[in-house]
Amino acid sequence: MVLLSLPAAELLDRLASPDPTPGGGSAAALAGAVAAALVAMVCGMPKTRTGDPVERARLDGALAEARATGDRLRLLVDEDSAAYDAVVAAYRLPKATEEQKASRKRAVDAALAVATDVPLRTAEACLGVLEAARAAAENGNPSAASDARTAAALAWAGLKGAAENVRINLGAPAGPSDVRSRVESLESAAGATLGALGLAPAGTGPVAGR
Amino acid sequence: MVLLSLPAAELLDRLASPDPTPGGGSAAALAGAVAAALVAMVCGMPKTRTGDPVERARLDGALAEARATGDRLRLLVDEDSAAYDAVVAAYRLPKATEEQKASRKRAVDAALAVATDVPLRTAEACLGVLEAARAAAENGNPSAASDARTAAALAWAGLKGAAENVRINLGAPAGPSDVRSRVESLESAAGATLGALGLAPAGTGPVAGR
Repeated sequence: MVLLSLPAAELLDRLASPDPTPGGGSAAALAGAVAAALVAMVCGMPKTRTGDPVERARLDGALAEARATGDRLRLLVDEDSAAYDAVVAAYRLPKATEEQKASRKRAVDAALAVATDVPLRTAEACLGVLEAARAAAENGNPSAASDARTAAALAWAGLKGAAENVRINLGAPAGPSDVRSRVESLESAAGATLGALGLAPAGTGPVAGR
Repeated sequence: MVLLSLPAAELLDRLASPDPTPGGGSAAALAGAVAAALVAMVCGMPKTRTGDPVERARLDGALAEARATGDRLRLLVDEDSAAYDAVVAAYRLPKATEEQKASRKRAVDAALAVATDVPLRTAEACLGVLEAARAAAENGNPSAASDARTAAALAWAGLKGAAENVRINLGAPAGPSDVRSRVESLESAAGATLGALGLAPAGTGPVAGR
């Protein structure tokens, strides 16, 4: 966990530098990890919404999910950066001869496949965090409702950012259509959960604001 | 900048602890700061979308905005935590006598006013970042479009999370209506920008996905 061992302010400086990594993919994983941490906070509080034991069981389940996906997302912060560094390195391979060109193309394709898979896994983990955030908002301590709802918004944004990174690395109309449809189904599920919480942009979601 | 001087992984652990701070308000400011950093990255790249000098001027403007709002958001990470600690401290004041009750109420009201103002400023800064992210997406290096779009999603989420924190500290139907309407207008502007970028949840925004 190289990037997350940096002081947070320095990690922000690294994101802000014009170097391509760390970039949006790492930032998306970080947003998901922040959301997972907030979900863990709400689920770890002794108080539940009404005190009903069913709420405690749901919060325990959401806590386990937030911890597992949060750990995955922390690792994905570095994995995304490493994956894109490999893409840049592959593009820099020599391309003077036909043999070099073919070798370079194989290296670029292989690196892009990894750089597509990593944000796809980030998007999947963010959906887990978003669903756990919904459970936290619906069953947790009402004083922490804003924390759970903030977590939901951040997990949605992490998923959306990761999806953008999958698409750009897939390339325009090329790229395997199963990955495309997987991303779209993750986005659609995330949009529905955001809407169910009344967090979709005002006037556009199934539940408009609150 | 106490919280941002922690290693990023430790900051995540602090967010995940069941202690009320740092909580959603700090996480919202952090999300905005991450978004601002991504905008700075894209605007700091030498390449623009088509090479048109107008794009460079727009990116320079967005870079200045991202730096200024990013700096503010970094400070707001700590300010939010301090503001909520003051609320908790005020609620713990003695309330045995009428005089103590009156004094405690004044302290709670004053602390809640600050704890409302801080996330309101976070929401305002996030809108600045979101608009800068839009400029970066529309004028910046196309290879970094996913970074600019990730920044937009994160800035929107930071604004939304901050708005949730304003509302919970305002209290149910009480609280000044000018703050309420200010928050709603920020949310509405943010939703429109997100929609203009095609990032609103699929099928619900003005531009549905892409």
